[in-house]
Amino acid sequence: MNESPGGVDLLGVLAYAELSAFTRMTEDAALLAPSLADRTALSELAVAEYEHFRLLCERLTELGADPEGAMLPFAEALDAWHTQTKPADWLQALVKAYVGVGIALDFYREAARRLEPSIAKLVDEVLADGGRAGFVVERVRAALASDPAASGRLALWARRLVGEALSQAQRIAAARPELARMLEESVADDQADISRLFATLTEEHGKRMSALGI
Amino acid sequence: MNESPGGVDLLGVLAYAELSAFTRMTEDAALLAPSLADRTALSELAVAEYEHFRLLCERLTELGADPEGAMLPFAEALDAWHTQTKPADWLQALVKAYVGVGIALDFYREAARRLEPSIAKLVDEVLADGGRAGFVVERVRAALASDPAASGRLALWARRLVGEALSQAQRIAAARPELARMLEESVADDQADISRLFATLTEEHGKRMSALGI
Repeated sequence: MNESPGGVDLLGVLAYAELSAFTRMTEDAALLAPSLADRTALSELAVAEYEHFRLLCERLTELGADPEGAMLPFAEALDAWHTQTKPADWLQALVKAYVGVGIALDFYREAARRLEPSIAKLVDEVLADGGRAGFVVERVRAALASDPAASGRLALWARRLVGEALSQAQRIAAARPELARMLEESVADDQADISRLFATLTEEHGKRMSALGI
Repeated sequence: MNESPGGVDLLGVLAYAELSAFTRMTEDAALLAPSLADRTALSELAVAEYEHFRLLCERLTELGADPEGAMLPFAEALDAWHTQTKPADWLQALVKAYVGVGIALDFYREAARRLEPSIAKLVDEVLADGGRAGFVVERVRAALASDPAASGRLALWARRLVGEALSQAQRIAAARPELARMLEESVADDQADISRLFATLTEEHGKRMSALGI
């Protein structure tokens, strides 16, 4: 794995993404959930992220990498994303858990598929949607049914989540040239691939937005 | 279980104690841990609390009780305890995770043994120390070895944790007469029992303080 610092980077950024999602969802659940049942439901998603984090750390250790060292270069950019996208209410927290985390995880899945076929299976496993859809979709749709005007505000919020994510992704690409180079090289083999990557991300994002009724 | 509202109360207060310990430890880990390895270690303890919370909710549901309804009467007192005992630094967070949570959980164990033999086994299982000792003891002892003067400040902090816990326990006893009455009645059968209860709590607390070297 010493020959593949980009691979360690990929697992590192994903591990820190899971750890910080766990922390922020737990916090959002405690601060914003309108009931203890809702708080429990979002905490369940948070703990699922933590279980993914554990798997990624185990894999990093197996590869001879130090999980802390692998995560550290990405902590600032990911923390900045969370600071820029602090939900103001429960619906924003739900949309963030579903749409914001969803697009980030789609990116990691696609990147892993292109960069490191050997870890693609683990990443697929980690990123499998553990029933996130059901709970969030149901809550958001119910809220929009009783307050249709909220849809426009949530659409704006979802765009902000994606915009801030792209801005942090650029920052990471600039700071981690190995990771960026690996992605560029894998894409250079097939010029159409970068378009396909963005097409996939956009398509999956669109599906999530429709599912929410936004 | 309808004949035993004290039993549902006991599971409810314990469930909310686990849920709030999960939330606060996750928050302390993110805000105060000096390294990502430390943050991970405290987050592991937080997630272990969450797993206990899950078991308790399942048991409440089996008993025909609504977990949310069972927890709600205790949320304010337990949240107040956390607000009164917000750690100012990493060592305070560790001592709180070990000493503060420890004494509360000892109390629940002893109460369950006296009140509801049928749930005592579950409570024992939930409260089994999942390696909490090892990590916290090691970190606190190492910190005190390099800064012996911190010991006095941490001893004061531990007393505050216990004092605030007693004050919230009195508040709960006043608000939940069934729970208080069940404890009193079980103790009335054996006048020496209340002394033994406090002796056990004090002894276990003393053991934890010695383990930490405070």
